[in-house]
Amino acid sequence: MRNLTLLTDLYQLTMLNGYFEKNIHEDIVVFDMFFRKNACNSGYTIVCGIEQFVDYINNIHFSDDDLKYLKSLNLFSDKFLIFLKDFKFTGDIYAVEEGTIMFPNEPVLTVKAPLYQAQLIETALLTIVNFQSLIATKASRVCFAAQGDPVLEFGLRRAQGPDAGTYGARAAVIGGCNATANVLAGKLFDIPLIGTQAHSWVQKFDTELEAFEAYADIYPDKCLLLVDTYNVLNSGLPNAIKVFKKLKENDYKPLGIRLDSGDLQYLSKECKKVLDKEGFGDVSITASNDLDEYTISSLKSDGAAINSWGVGTKLITSADSPSLGGVYKLAASFKGDIIEPKIKLSEDPEKINNPGYKKVVRIYNESHKAEADLIMLHNEVIDESKPLTVFHPIYNWKAKTFINYKIKELHKPLFINGECKHEHKSVMEIRDYVKDELNTLWEGYRRLSNPQTYKVDLSDDLWNLKNEMIDSKKFL
Amino acid sequence: MRNLTLLTDLYQLTMLNGYFEKNIHEDIVVFDMFFRKNACNSGYTIVCGIEQFVDYINNIHFSDDDLKYLKSLNLFSDKFLIFLKDFKFTGDIYAVEEGTIMFPNEPVLTVKAPLYQAQLIETALLTIVNFQSLIATKASRVCFAAQGDPVLEFGLRRAQGPDAGTYGARAAVIGGCNATANVLAGKLFDIPLIGTQAHSWVQKFDTELEAFEAYADIYPDKCLLLVDTYNVLNSGLPNAIKVFKKLKENDYKPLGIRLDSGDLQYLSKECKKVLDKEGFGDVSITASNDLDEYTISSLKSDGAAINSWGVGTKLITSADSPSLGGVYKLAASFKGDIIEPKIKLSEDPEKINNPGYKKVVRIYNESHKAEADLIMLHNEVIDESKPLTVFHPIYNWKAKTFINYKIKELHKPLFINGECKHEHKSVMEIRDYVKDELNTLWEGYRRLSNPQTYKVDLSDDLWNLKNEMIDSKKFL
Repeated sequence: MRNLTLLTDLYQLTMLNGYFEKNIHEDIVVFDMFFRKNACNSGYTIVCGIEQFVDYINNIHFSDDDLKYLKSLNLFSDKFLIFLKDFKFTGDIYAVEEGTIMFPNEPVLTVKAPLYQAQLIETALLTIVNFQSLIATKASRVCFAAQGDPVLEFGLRRAQGPDAGTYGARAAVIGGCNATANVLAGKLFDIPLIGTQAHSWVQKFDTELEAFEAYADIYPDKCLLLVDTYNVLNSGLPNAIKVFKKLKENDYKPLGIRLDSGDLQYLSKECKKVLDKEGFGDVSITASNDLDEYTISSLKSDGAAINSWGVGTKLITSADSPSLGGVYKLAASFKGDIIEPKIKLSEDPEKINNPGYKKVVRIYNESHKAEADLIMLHNEVIDESKPLTVFHPIYNWKAKTFINYKIKELHKPLFINGECKHEHKSVMEIRDYVKDELNTLWEGYRRLSNPQTYKVDLSDDLWNLKNEMIDSKKFL
Repeated sequence: MRNLTLLTDLYQLTMLNGYFEKNIHEDIVVFDMFFRKNACNSGYTIVCGIEQFVDYINNIHFSDDDLKYLKSLNLFSDKFLIFLKDFKFTGDIYAVEEGTIMFPNEPVLTVKAPLYQAQLIETALLTIVNFQSLIATKASRVCFAAQGDPVLEFGLRRAQGPDAGTYGARAAVIGGCNATANVLAGKLFDIPLIGTQAHSWVQKFDTELEAFEAYADIYPDKCLLLVDTYNVLNSGLPNAIKVFKKLKENDYKPLGIRLDSGDLQYLSKECKKVLDKEGFGDVSITASNDLDEYTISSLKSDGAAINSWGVGTKLITSADSPSLGGVYKLAASFKGDIIEPKIKLSEDPEKINNPGYKKVVRIYNESHKAEADLIMLHNEVIDESKPLTVFHPIYNWKAKTFINYKIKELHKPLFINGECKHEHKSVMEIRDYVKDELNTLWEGYRRLSNPQTYKVDLSDDLWNLKNEMIDSKKFL
């Protein structure tokens, strides 16, 4: 496993050294990871990457080589560097289960640990979880647009480096994709692979027909042919049909054709007509070429005869919204057993963090649809036998009372006293869980453009605490 | 070093297996890597990532574990898997020097190798070089906007995974950034690091003043203070000035302040006024918060008093243009010593590749400004003593004749018969080379919006070859 201990911002280490010098490094603090806006302008965000974050925590250590490098920076005391030699995470981490749907301002993950440990891990946590959550969410949107057709992840060559292509493929499958072309991702995460041939295969042979025949000869039961190297309707498709007929004579079932350029709507319809006429109406027509949820939606509503979608660049980079702005903020500091809540002010009320040691509760109706979430202080309890009224945290005249409801606490322990409590789940299991999660959402939250805003409210106690703290600061 | 051999698309391996079955896998072929549009809507693209591509080639091998995984896919013959066991790159690769400025449709890198080898490496090559070239180009734009002010790379937490943050930091420094916050990138690539303190440092102490005093106490000669945790003008700045005064009394020179939110133009000017009045007119005012080349340009032209720029998300993801669409196309196949050029047609003339085994030549004027590039067949020679006329490859009535000029062949050998010829250069050396390269460009090509289009023309021989091949296909 790679040592990502130095995958951090320098200021984390200058602060650690400072905390150490001031002898406050062992103070127990609480940090929350949350995001202020959903990924991909979506109505929700799928939390993804928890497994890789757990691997990172389990593997944190400063190697001799790391320490030698840090010493060379002339920023840290020798005493501090010796202290780092024995660095080990000993705190608690609570997080939502990987694949959980979350909403803005909710703690996705809460760290309660000695200050120096909680501070160090910020950057890697954000790097890992921001990216995979972004891609899982993007993939769920693309799959939503494909209305149940298979969606294939093809983006590795345009991914932002090897990890982006590989962890991105993992996240894409978790978000709903059926397979990836990335062999390394297939191996690492045991996810289905897909791939046939490229234009270079077709070009290498003297004629397109020879290229198709050679492919069918080697993969008679996996024959999906790329038909746009020279000209789809005058060359690729007729050649494919010749090969399909031979396969059929030998009792093989051809898989279909792939279009990778041109007017996909027109070409797919024309191909479908010919395929139907020639008795191959049941083969797949796969399309690729700069697709995303919007182009797929548009092709679908224009009646394109495509039933399998290869999605590359725009999925693996989340091209129209290529980052999730997850942040990690100090929420509390313990003085002995006393919790001292912490706040960061801002002229923008939406940017003021929720102070204190907290948890998140989801409220479901009788048909298990999610109705609202409540951010609460860690020790608050809801009596499910009584009606529950929730308020909007800023526009608090917006209120709603629930009578028949069930609640679920979303945080589970990932680490307790440094001991890993995380249970490994396979990618395909997490993918199933995401499907269940998405089923708890009303359709309006899944809309690709202008989705409904899900209710995330604060408990009375948290709301009061926050407002007292804001009032007590005289700066605004 | 990581084994990235499986960082490839499945279709590369299904094709390899097919070439092997058809016994054409040892045929010598030529593939070109090129891009059709510049990175970041720029007038040029900085080629970056060559060093990591070389590492990848030097390290290619299928481990027993890899082969076991491939066998489990039930796609490949045992004979082929045994063949892969001894996979080693034995071909030639020519590429431009890392940091070279290139333009659309020019081969950046040309592979001449046995078919199975040339085919396998496509995906990793593109993943590595597309991303780093994208970020190096983006960074050069951001630095251009900053007009010589230091630009600091702060994006790790929003990068698309660990590699994106780390290789992205490398590329950003190559493109012109002065330092990165990413400690791992600092260690791996020996590049300058920067970092001071976060909001959490300020929040952890009972008051902002205590937090600043503590920082100044530990880092008296590196005191740059983050002044926006509570309120810049009423709290952060006055507290910073108190601390700066004490530092001055003790003969330390404070470094400056950092603004990370709010109206950067207004706040920086107000801070500057106060700092000037208090005798700290020479300290740095660093700004961060969703900056890119456009916001920096706008802040500059509005007279913001900022002289150091922390650039995060929008640089490390190249947010407005998060991929470079580099492709890798079969250009020729050898039959013995005879070169058989290869072409892929398209209804869009710009998408038809340039066939044949080629090289690229840059034409400089007497003051070493780049005037045009010429894509030529590999064995063509230019006589510099004679005038040289170049034609636009599509609008060929556009022509220009050069009289006093110098030419430079841009490709250098990276591998010859599988032997590595690449000379390692440090990141800071490559950064210097990029500066020299950018100096060869007329200003118009560097403009952030609507840059001039650089001339990339085809030699007469190549132009004739291409058009004969297009004419010989009857499909269009």
